[in-house]
Amino acid sequence: MQISDFSLYLITDRHRTGGRQLTEVVRRSLEGGVRAVQLREKDLSSDELYRLALEMRRLTSDFNAPLIINDRLDIALAIEADGVHIGVNSLPVAVVRRVLGQGKVIGYSAHAIDEALRAQADGADFVTFGPLYPTPSKAAYGEPCGVSKLAAAASALEIPVIALGGISLANITEALSASIQGVAVISAILAAADPRVAAASMLKKIEEYAQRA
Amino acid sequence: MQISDFSLYLITDRHRTGGRQLTEVVRRSLEGGVRAVQLREKDLSSDELYRLALEMRRLTSDFNAPLIINDRLDIALAIEADGVHIGVNSLPVAVVRRVLGQGKVIGYSAHAIDEALRAQADGADFVTFGPLYPTPSKAAYGEPCGVSKLAAAASALEIPVIALGGISLANITEALSASIQGVAVISAILAAADPRVAAASMLKKIEEYAQRA
Repeated sequence: MQISDFSLYLITDRHRTGGRQLTEVVRRSLEGGVRAVQLREKDLSSDELYRLALEMRRLTSDFNAPLIINDRLDIALAIEADGVHIGVNSLPVAVVRRVLGQGKVIGYSAHAIDEALRAQADGADFVTFGPLYPTPSKAAYGEPCGVSKLAAAASALEIPVIALGGISLANITEALSASIQGVAVISAILAAADPRVAAASMLKKIEEYAQRA
Repeated sequence: MQISDFSLYLITDRHRTGGRQLTEVVRRSLEGGVRAVQLREKDLSSDELYRLALEMRRLTSDFNAPLIINDRLDIALAIEADGVHIGVNSLPVAVVRRVLGQGKVIGYSAHAIDEALRAQADGADFVTFGPLYPTPSKAAYGEPCGVSKLAAAASALEIPVIALGGISLANITEALSASIQGVAVISAILAAADPRVAAASMLKKIEEYAQRA
């Protein structure tokens, strides 16, 4: 896969779809142009997560989109996902690389530049960095970093940096000004009245920005 | 490893050690004769479980005892455990076998004979069967099965059956009369005033029974 696949990276949360089926919302977002999906459902048993991940594998394959599993390396191996997305509460990056092998992608959720540099040194393929803007789902990770710190992270790292946290159609162009390789979104797409339109609108902004740059 | 290693199979629960360090209690139980350890700590993050599993790996290796990880195949792979112990809420047995490979052990927690037979057909190496006696930790799995149903399970299965649920020094000989290959215990050892003495006393009963049989 290309890292350009991550220009619009959807992170799931089935509690934030307004009661709609997660698979249906993800399908609509893929139709709208989402490039990659991270399955991030922390409150499921192993068998429930496995079955949902299998559905997501079929769905993302239909769109030729990479599927990344949050935290659970075993689920990623079981369903032949394209990689895992880990963070400070996961297995160490180097251990994940050893078990997962080469050829699979490791994303890392970083909240500080030194943390992102460590993940890069340990073998991560890209990082999400944030929270960029205030957002309830990332309140536990501290104050929003803002665009200047995001730009500093993008500049300090050799691997791609994906901005995360509170990104919407209203602020995506500002986020892109930090010379990042993509944006990760949860609510802006999952909770949208029409996830297809929301994804297509964000992708249009990304493509417009790329043409200007 | 030999299946005789599972004649006294300790399942961990760090909330039931009376406030003592789990690793210290497990060390004492290994000194007393515990043959195999299942790390079963369901409320830890991946990194916490990984670090605890690494400690358990070192400890069980010192005693040449197999270490089995409950549910989390990724943790088992990461620390090179001897196998995983799964159940109805885990990844399917056949999927675990595919990811784990041959040469590692798969235990399965069965609560009914048909479930145990399915696990055997799917590739499990042994089952725990229970709850045999009333026990708070297994109340969610329904009524105790009693010795006669345990004996029926042991007779129906080709793979080893380990009895589980409420087994103590007082009833272990009755449990062994069901022609099982071992007993699994939690509180009877973890919560004992002296886990070493508790394990040694249970092992003595197991050895006495084997000599009589």
